[in-house]
Amino acid sequence: MREILERALGKGREEVIYGETASYIPELGRVDKNQLGVCIYTSDGKKEAVGDYDVRFTIQSISKVITLAVALERCGFYKVFEKVGMEPSGDAFNSLIKLDLSNNYPYNPMINSGAIAIASYLTPIISFKKMLQITRRLCMDDDITLNTDVYLSEMNHISRNKAIAYLLESKGIIASGSVQESLDFYVRMCSLNVTAESLANFGLVLARGGIHPETGEQLLEEDVVQVVKTIMLTCGMYDGSGEFAVHVGVPSKSGVGGGILSVADKKMGIGIFGPSLDAKGNSIAGRSILRTLSKELNLHIFA
Amino acid sequence: MREILERALGKGREEVIYGETASYIPELGRVDKNQLGVCIYTSDGKKEAVGDYDVRFTIQSISKVITLAVALERCGFYKVFEKVGMEPSGDAFNSLIKLDLSNNYPYNPMINSGAIAIASYLTPIISFKKMLQITRRLCMDDDITLNTDVYLSEMNHISRNKAIAYLLESKGIIASGSVQESLDFYVRMCSLNVTAESLANFGLVLARGGIHPETGEQLLEEDVVQVVKTIMLTCGMYDGSGEFAVHVGVPSKSGVGGGILSVADKKMGIGIFGPSLDAKGNSIAGRSILRTLSKELNLHIFA
Amino acid sequence: MREILERALGKGREEVIYGETASYIPELGRVDKNQLGVCIYTSDGKKEAVGDYDVRFTIQSISKVITLAVALERCGFYKVFEKVGMEPSGDAFNSLIKLDLSNNYPYNPMINSGAIAIASYLTPIISFKKMLQITRRLCMDDDITLNTDVYLSEMNHISRNKAIAYLLESKGIIASGSVQESLDFYVRMCSLNVTAESLANFGLVLARGGIHPETGEQLLEEDVVQVVKTIMLTCGMYDGSGEFAVHVGVPSKSGVGGGILSVADKKMGIGIFGPSLDAKGNSIAGRSILRTLSKELNLHIFA
Amino acid sequence: MREILERALGKGREEVIYGETASYIPELGRVDKNQLGVCIYTSDGKKEAVGDYDVRFTIQSISKVITLAVALERCGFYKVFEKVGMEPSGDAFNSLIKLDLSNNYPYNPMINSGAIAIASYLTPIISFKKMLQITRRLCMDDDITLNTDVYLSEMNHISRNKAIAYLLESKGIIASGSVQESLDFYVRMCSLNVTAESLANFGLVLARGGIHPETGEQLLEEDVVQVVKTIMLTCGMYDGSGEFAVHVGVPSKSGVGGGILSVADKKMGIGIFGPSLDAKGNSIAGRSILRTLSKELNLHIFA
Repeated sequence: MREILERALGKGREEVIYGETASYIPELGRVDKNQLGVCIYTSDGKKEAVGDYDVRFTIQSISKVITLAVALERCGFYKVFEKVGMEPSGDAFNSLIKLDLSNNYPYNPMINSGAIAIASYLTPIISFKKMLQITRRLCMDDDITLNTDVYLSEMNHISRNKAIAYLLESKGIIASGSVQESLDFYVRMCSLNVTAESLANFGLVLARGGIHPETGEQLLEEDVVQVVKTIMLTCGMYDGSGEFAVHVGVPSKSGVGGGILSVADKKMGIGIFGPSLDAKGNSIAGRSILRTLSKELNLHIFA
Repeated sequence: MREILERALGKGREEVIYGETASYIPELGRVDKNQLGVCIYTSDGKKEAVGDYDVRFTIQSISKVITLAVALERCGFYKVFEKVGMEPSGDAFNSLIKLDLSNNYPYNPMINSGAIAIASYLTPIISFKKMLQITRRLCMDDDITLNTDVYLSEMNHISRNKAIAYLLESKGIIASGSVQESLDFYVRMCSLNVTAESLANFGLVLARGGIHPETGEQLLEEDVVQVVKTIMLTCGMYDGSGEFAVHVGVPSKSGVGGGILSVADKKMGIGIFGPSLDAKGNSIAGRSILRTLSKELNLHIFA
Repeated sequence: MREILERALGKGREEVIYGETASYIPELGRVDKNQLGVCIYTSDGKKEAVGDYDVRFTIQSISKVITLAVALERCGFYKVFEKVGMEPSGDAFNSLIKLDLSNNYPYNPMINSGAIAIASYLTPIISFKKMLQITRRLCMDDDITLNTDVYLSEMNHISRNKAIAYLLESKGIIASGSVQESLDFYVRMCSLNVTAESLANFGLVLARGGIHPETGEQLLEEDVVQVVKTIMLTCGMYDGSGEFAVHVGVPSKSGVGGGILSVADKKMGIGIFGPSLDAKGNSIAGRSILRTLSKELNLHIFA
Repeated sequence: MREILERALGKGREEVIYGETASYIPELGRVDKNQLGVCIYTSDGKKEAVGDYDVRFTIQSISKVITLAVALERCGFYKVFEKVGMEPSGDAFNSLIKLDLSNNYPYNPMINSGAIAIASYLTPIISFKKMLQITRRLCMDDDITLNTDVYLSEMNHISRNKAIAYLLESKGIIASGSVQESLDFYVRMCSLNVTAESLANFGLVLARGGIHPETGEQLLEEDVVQVVKTIMLTCGMYDGSGEFAVHVGVPSKSGVGGGILSVADKKMGIGIFGPSLDAKGNSIAGRSILRTLSKELNLHIFA
């Protein structure tokens, strides 16, 4: 296993130079793009980790998975999907076009508009502090904290997300007056510091249908986990989700911080950190690593 | 002349029941939709007015003409059109689609995105108070004031325009940090109380190339007026501008308050008030009246 | 098993009145919309069928799965996906917008543009007669024939598909001069007469990785089958694919003839015939039946 | 006058190197892009011409003006505009997007979709031979003939227009079965050989409200000419029409053969030949020449 991991890491490392770190805020642009780490945590309790698996980075869009799961538990399926769809959009994650065109609702909870809408459903009923606790529990990582530098910098470059949020408000998708706190909640969730290991831990929770792999506690309802995994599969890798499903076939969610959370159902959780991104915003080495692992470990849903 | 005006008014009145007042804020919805008035002011100094020509209503989008004219004078042609186009958009006035699609810039200064951009160029160099003075002068109407009720109500229903403004900010079309004051400026200009007579007065100024019809003073530069009239002709009647140009052929700008400003070049200014609107947001009786007047008075640019 | 099937059929039947048969050609509109049949064929060799499982109907878009599989085998993965994507489009199956917009290539092989492109890759190397033989073999059904009435009628209502094909030609996605024969090939494949049982048979072949369930022969390469199932999952149910994946979670492909082909990986093939369609063009009773079966038989990919 | 013309030509010539000839068919690409000619024909009967004013070139999209005029006369305003709009589209001339999106009808008669629709209304009632006679009469040029090389080459590169035509057919905008002959008619009209002088002649007919400048015969109805000139002004210069209206303010129609037809209402007709095109498909030198002439001769509609 360790050998396969090392090999996958080696192959992934060759891709690093073809990507770039995210540049929309200086805090992300400054990150060393050569960092690369992987952690896997299997159903039978084994954990393997190579490279920079314990380096902290911001979770970014991967937080959309946590927010969706919590919203499904607290607000219910009907409320969450009343005004947010479950369809891949075929467009970039921060596009406003579909939203303003024929379809009045955000396509799915993995794009910004959908995630901001869902944030607005949560802010009245759950505090960010509580969300942080839940995140720590799901990731089995008590050291997750808010990266204040990234949080503040994101809040200073929030124009496009503000545009999205106000458009949601104007269409009655989010409640009137809820833009500011929804965006604050959304950005805070994106600015949590995790590691590849935290993501592998969370991945295994999802792989096991919501059950804590050590304590056996049901952290998330099984139904909720099934929905979350399906949406990760169809919508989790931005507008490259379809191709990723063909080549890798493992429900995954990436973030522009360089992280990828992957869930080989019933088998293992995988966490990756590789901040060099491809043109669609996915970790370029991470993609390569997951392709190798899927092949060598037979992880594809239809393998 | 008076007879033609009365006849046009009569025919226009028959259309009123097929339209509705604007409903996005209660202050506009509450207006009596049966009101109707026309004023014409000709180059040889004659003024005729019938119906509710002296009833005050908010200028709304017609203020875009004033803002454009002032911006052309104060900022210059190059600055105004550096990031705002001169093309009809083929879309609704408050659409975000084109803005987020291939074309990065607002299509023209008569749609909200273009007008908000231009507002942002003006706010650093001219106060609203000064703009009010200029408006009074151009309309030869010292009684023009801010309609505070409408202003406050518009500011409470500003989500979509906020979405537009933040999208402009995210694209660098308006300066970072200028959203709030640009919107405030934009909404104040929309909330000025005018009459059909004020619009006829302003129309004649434009018809005469910027010259005050009584004092002979050059209120606006001739070049600026030529640009303004052309853009009114191609873009002034929302996404019905092309058809209006065919049927009426007179540079015009409408507002959802029910006003229409029309400029029969060299011949006359026309002001209309008729708050019952068609589906595109143009005064339904006003359109009919202008069609009659254009025909009977031979006002079409290619008559 | 039989009992579950009967119950699912019963529940599905209640939906029939909320849908309509396809109406774009009279031959489909004329079909009795109350017909309903299901067939399942499991990995351990058992077959159960209820209702109108042996009624012939045209395969329509389900043929896209066969064409894709054959093209992957004969042309190779690279050629097939050189100018056709693997992403859900977020648009209707016969839309031209995405194709003419930023993205130059058809989004995926399950929408008309992608399927017509793939048809054009096959026409130079394989005859329709041969395709019919392959279809019969994959469906274990020697009685599959061309429905000439439907074929001729489709060819008489081909304008939109012609528009798509000529746009593909103009973009160099299909070879110059290949429009006519590609469309003919595409329409012939859509006009094959199958039964719910034929589809269940083909489904089991896919569920078993391409292996004939009786003879053990490898009818399709395992790699090809994996790609096909993944694309069915993300793109198979028109623009309702994402929601279907959440609720049912079984790779499926529907056709406007009322058929659905479903593949519960490793477990079973399912064939459905129910010509009453929902607004997106999927069998309305069929959707209900699959939801019931997925739940009761634990077929969801993440169950 | 001659001096102004020479000066305008000189300034225009400097622009030639910044453009390119049309390249979609070899026959147009091969043309010497340095050719440049202008002809003006004034209301008082004077004609001035400089440069390559007598070189033959294909009329291309300028024929849309003739087709529109004849259709208005023969089919009537209502029939022509029943399923074709009068609005600038804000998109490229050969776009399919708007057509397939919300708006079901071609935006205007100056873009390909609108012109093909109008061609289909004419083919049942008028022969191409008759159209050629009319064209010769309107241009006072009996030497206008079909450029067979261009015609055949266009017919060999017709995919996109075929896509447009079949989409029109599928929407019922053109009659079923009329695609082939409509395209043939459309392409023949585009392939007529004219000169800058022919266009100046036709321009003067339009400037004079349809009257032959020498015989006084009413060649086109006055109403028809008014509609035609208005649509040229708002839609005649592809998606650069709005800017052209601001800078030049003269109803014009350009073609990718390098021609521009301009109508200074009541004053003169202008014909230009300059096959070096800008990015939007307008003669690059021609645009410059018209800007100079508009300024020096005071031709702007609002001068």
